[in-house]
Amino acid sequence: MESNIRVIKVKQSVLANNDARAEKVRAKLKENGVFLINLMSSPGAGKTTLLVSLINELKKNLRVGVIEADMDAVVDTETIKEKTGVKAMQLHTSGECHLDAKMVDEAITEFGLGELDLVILENIGNLVCPAEFDTGASMNLVLLSVPEGDDKPLKYPLMFKVGEVFVFTKMDVAPYFDFDLEKVKGHILKLNKEASFYPVSAKTGEGMEELEKAILNAVREYKK
Amino acid sequence: MESNIRVIKVKQSVLANNDARAEKVRAKLKENGVFLINLMSSPGAGKTTLLVSLINELKKNLRVGVIEADMDAVVDTETIKEKTGVKAMQLHTSGECHLDAKMVDEAITEFGLGELDLVILENIGNLVCPAEFDTGASMNLVLLSVPEGDDKPLKYPLMFKVGEVFVFTKMDVAPYFDFDLEKVKGHILKLNKEASFYPVSAKTGEGMEELEKAILNAVREYKK
Repeated sequence: MESNIRVIKVKQSVLANNDARAEKVRAKLKENGVFLINLMSSPGAGKTTLLVSLINELKKNLRVGVIEADMDAVVDTETIKEKTGVKAMQLHTSGECHLDAKMVDEAITEFGLGELDLVILENIGNLVCPAEFDTGASMNLVLLSVPEGDDKPLKYPLMFKVGEVFVFTKMDVAPYFDFDLEKVKGHILKLNKEASFYPVSAKTGEGMEELEKAILNAVREYKK
Repeated sequence: MESNIRVIKVKQSVLANNDARAEKVRAKLKENGVFLINLMSSPGAGKTTLLVSLINELKKNLRVGVIEADMDAVVDTETIKEKTGVKAMQLHTSGECHLDAKMVDEAITEFGLGELDLVILENIGNLVCPAEFDTGASMNLVLLSVPEGDDKPLKYPLMFKVGEVFVFTKMDVAPYFDFDLEKVKGHILKLNKEASFYPVSAKTGEGMEELEKAILNAVREYKK
């Protein structure tokens, strides 16, 4: 048990340090009028595909930058650059399963905040660790894809507590899966009364306009 | 930086302790003729659905038990008990994103090893942390579902290095997704020359017989 207790204590101190750093990141972003979205989901829920589609609309009205977190690879950054043309940066977490506020602080500083209105952070594909670490984001956006199933909020409650905007992706394949939209909304609302929901398909375009408008409005409200 | 270094040191010592405990678990299982499968995947890849289908066949020839790990919920254990009738136990990790050898050791001891041939451990849905912790299993079985995409081995390499048997699930929906079976096999073989592959659909039954036979043979070989 001793080593377990030691781990828990170190973890608590790491989380407290992280929260303080996240507040600094938030203040720095606000000062520079930059809105930061922390995009979280399971592996393969469609974060990169959604991003490409979102950015190609949002870049008409906003100066957008992307920070791609990966444990090892660079494929997503290359995809974003190639398909949207916006500024994209790769962050490697060296095996860690989340981004922390310190990594984000260093990345946004290198990015040059003066030239951007919106930065989207694509977190590691994971429903556990990223929920524990505040990145300093202005909005926590959580994706849940239809094939994952409508029971995920029961199994990964913290992620669905810290999320603010929930996007249900791959709605085009809903006929081939048991995915009850009302059921999943009910599970999330029990954890999180302020949650808002956007069912979309990046493939067919269904629901994308509503999501784009919601993000654009949030950024404009923030920059007032 | 100091707190980061402290975390890394504690983590290394935790992993070393875990490896030693895992070897003890493996010896105890071998002594009792119990084969342990560590089942790992992303959230929503279909672990529980596959388990129900697998167990209903395997229980004809083997005495099967299931250990369900979850951070919080009990839904999977209830599903397993209800749909297969085999012995199932719930393990809560209290927010941790993986199972360690100590938790497994306590669970198998409570289970009563003398009455079982095969124990299947359904790990937390996560492609990161469970790969780091040896559970003492006789076989690491990794699920990757078609909707997650064929690029996952590039992004979560450790999971695809420690896996031994790879099951591609939800093959029935392959026509609706870009999922290249040969490509994903190629990515895995680069990390792991000994990998074996089973494309299946628990829904249509496609490929299930081959997987059941492979597991049955592995258990029989182990018990010789």
